[in-house]
Amino acid sequence: MKNITILGAGLSATSLIDYLLQRAESYDWQIHIGDYDESIAIQKTNGNKRGHAFRFDVNDAEQIETVISSTDIVVSMLPASFHHLIAESCVKHKKQMLTASYVSPEIKALDQGAKDSEIGIFMELGVDPGIDHMSAMKVIDKLRADGSNLHAFFSSTGGLVAPEFDNNPWNYKFTWNPRNVVLAGQGNSMFIRNGRYKYIPYQRLFKRIAHTSIEGVGDFEIYPNRDSLKYRETYGLEDIPTIFRGTMRRPGFAKAWDIFVQLGATDDTYAIENSANMTYREFINTFLPYEQDTAVEVKLKAQFSEIIDEDVFNKLQWLGIFDNTKIELKNATPAQILQSIMERKLQLEDGDIDMIAMQHRFEFTTKSGEEKKIISSIVVRGESKEKTAMAITVGTPLAIATKMVATGDIKLVGVHVPVIPELYNPILDELEELGIKFTEVES
Amino acid sequence: MKNITILGAGLSATSLIDYLLQRAESYDWQIHIGDYDESIAIQKTNGNKRGHAFRFDVNDAEQIETVISSTDIVVSMLPASFHHLIAESCVKHKKQMLTASYVSPEIKALDQGAKDSEIGIFMELGVDPGIDHMSAMKVIDKLRADGSNLHAFFSSTGGLVAPEFDNNPWNYKFTWNPRNVVLAGQGNSMFIRNGRYKYIPYQRLFKRIAHTSIEGVGDFEIYPNRDSLKYRETYGLEDIPTIFRGTMRRPGFAKAWDIFVQLGATDDTYAIENSANMTYREFINTFLPYEQDTAVEVKLKAQFSEIIDEDVFNKLQWLGIFDNTKIELKNATPAQILQSIMERKLQLEDGDIDMIAMQHRFEFTTKSGEEKKIISSIVVRGESKEKTAMAITVGTPLAIATKMVATGDIKLVGVHVPVIPELYNPILDELEELGIKFTEVES
Repeated sequence: MKNITILGAGLSATSLIDYLLQRAESYDWQIHIGDYDESIAIQKTNGNKRGHAFRFDVNDAEQIETVISSTDIVVSMLPASFHHLIAESCVKHKKQMLTASYVSPEIKALDQGAKDSEIGIFMELGVDPGIDHMSAMKVIDKLRADGSNLHAFFSSTGGLVAPEFDNNPWNYKFTWNPRNVVLAGQGNSMFIRNGRYKYIPYQRLFKRIAHTSIEGVGDFEIYPNRDSLKYRETYGLEDIPTIFRGTMRRPGFAKAWDIFVQLGATDDTYAIENSANMTYREFINTFLPYEQDTAVEVKLKAQFSEIIDEDVFNKLQWLGIFDNTKIELKNATPAQILQSIMERKLQLEDGDIDMIAMQHRFEFTTKSGEEKKIISSIVVRGESKEKTAMAITVGTPLAIATKMVATGDIKLVGVHVPVIPELYNPILDELEELGIKFTEVES
Repeated sequence: MKNITILGAGLSATSLIDYLLQRAESYDWQIHIGDYDESIAIQKTNGNKRGHAFRFDVNDAEQIETVISSTDIVVSMLPASFHHLIAESCVKHKKQMLTASYVSPEIKALDQGAKDSEIGIFMELGVDPGIDHMSAMKVIDKLRADGSNLHAFFSSTGGLVAPEFDNNPWNYKFTWNPRNVVLAGQGNSMFIRNGRYKYIPYQRLFKRIAHTSIEGVGDFEIYPNRDSLKYRETYGLEDIPTIFRGTMRRPGFAKAWDIFVQLGATDDTYAIENSANMTYREFINTFLPYEQDTAVEVKLKAQFSEIIDEDVFNKLQWLGIFDNTKIELKNATPAQILQSIMERKLQLEDGDIDMIAMQHRFEFTTKSGEEKKIISSIVVRGESKEKTAMAITVGTPLAIATKMVATGDIKLVGVHVPVIPELYNPILDELEELGIKFTEVES
């Protein structure tokens, strides 16, 4: 019997846990589910006798040791900053580990230790990062094998509400951590286009959008997503002249969101004095010039006349930012206040279904000198408000990899991300069996 | 005999050293001048027999101990981040210390230690911070004594080139550390106006300008300077409904500078790949969209049509940003590259004279209910390219305070800034004797 321990049992762990519990009997696994809130862990075991819930506190160093030393495989769904604590213990006790998070410098530094302990630490096994790597690398490796020269790679992902439930002026609802949505894009975005480096600061990000569409689900806009340059190394495309990664939203989102960026309303670095007693309207007014007798709406339009058209103004008004509602958050940052305003309007409602959309575009010259392109797209729909497309696409590839580690089908040691065929091929194959399949159009 | 040790002998220490050496004989002082570059220290002693130059390395902990333990008073002109190392040693060896820098949290934490050692640590004794505190507090304390109610305080400072030497389209030359000029305003600016909190993010800072003028030197524009709110506590103005601090430039500067802010060209958080081989023109192009056949000038104008008029465009072109000159800085940040471009054009030339301008505006209700205001202004001109207004106004109040500590006229212990009459009165009186005098207009 193998012991598999899942740390963190929140929303995004639902599909992962379901997948493993469903197969626990036939593979002879015991699934241990730890969460700081034990009741959530208990709920997720769903009465399955192969499931065992327990309270887990990542700040309890002794408990980490006890838990890791007594299991075989650990899947960490904890916040990313805690992974290295778990990974260090896994190296020490020679246990396998898997996560859906980016390889941090701390995790990277454990590569040799993991090799010495003959264990694998498998990272970036979710959707983005995860399915994006796997689906892109499968095409990239095939082009390489064919002798084609890939000269441009574009890749974009978006978490959105499914079209039938898209009923607000933003064409958007929160399908994952709202905080990350409010803070998205802070810092700089970098990419390369026909050999020219391109750097976009946060204050220009939502002005520099591209457009695409996916058959059956419609049009999207794309804003650049952080550092695309680092993917050259990850994908072995060091000399590629064009590489770009983006985030997908419905058309019109970026222009309206840009107002919050320009105002400074997404800032998370300082607290607004006396925010609890302020209204939404006063919050917006803190970012506008002092003019005794001018309405907030009028000042906002005057400051951003080049951005605010009727559509943008309607989106802002619909959100309630001009309302006299009390914020009721003490010493909150602008980002926290904006998040609380948006959460009142942009939550998934009962019965709502979300979707994940992803699209890659590969431009290449074939061995025979032809200019061709492949557009590879996928749309995954959620099943319910709990089993969201986000939970499914994050949890399923991670669950498949966990199964393969448990069965011994994956024998790699050291720190790995799924950019190698022995990882991406079996995972993509099984995802396809489960209906998570890319559509490729070559032209 | 008293030993006074000055650590750091760069440009901004010139006036300080001159002041102390001139008075060393009559007060019986030995002036020890330490710098990492001993030749600079030797040059600054100017052959004066009361002067003693030595090589000082702040990274040599042992030397710090030797130097501090064998002197009476230490004036630190080192970069601000090193002051606390010196201050800790001063507390240990019971030596007095003075600087022109802001009180850092580390320095603040030494207050009790300084009191226990019965020494004073005197901070913020330059121009800004320094003369701004002293001149403002003198008026604020007087209004308080008169029973007036101060309801608005505006204060702005600028380091600029003197009008006769103002011969470029920016109406600006570097009169202090160019790096600080390029990075100025990053973060958020905060102030309060008629009881309304106002927060301005970096990307709006150079769009939210005010205007003023000073008799004899002309017009200025003012952009908000970081956190004005904290001055409420420093000045004992906790309930004031309006407080605003700003930085002065000549009209038209902010609008042109805003282009660099919007582009992201002042960013100091990442290095541009292959920057050494890039040209100025290519540098600007990295921030603009990829369009194969469109000139950089055309793209820039299209991106910023709401900012770029003929005047702005001429300023940019004059700086050379469209030139095919090689950057020749390896893996430099955008801010470092922009600084190097500007340094070629905006340096003080031989014979140029700089100036410091400062203006306070106090709006108050008198005891008898009258609404009045005081505008208090000063312009200090440099004497030469070496003895700049910046060096004079930073060094002179610090030198006066050092003299008073040496003579025992200042007997305060603990950490102090010059917001109390026993510090600001004698310093302002002597500055006035030396010709550094505010003009007050009450109306």
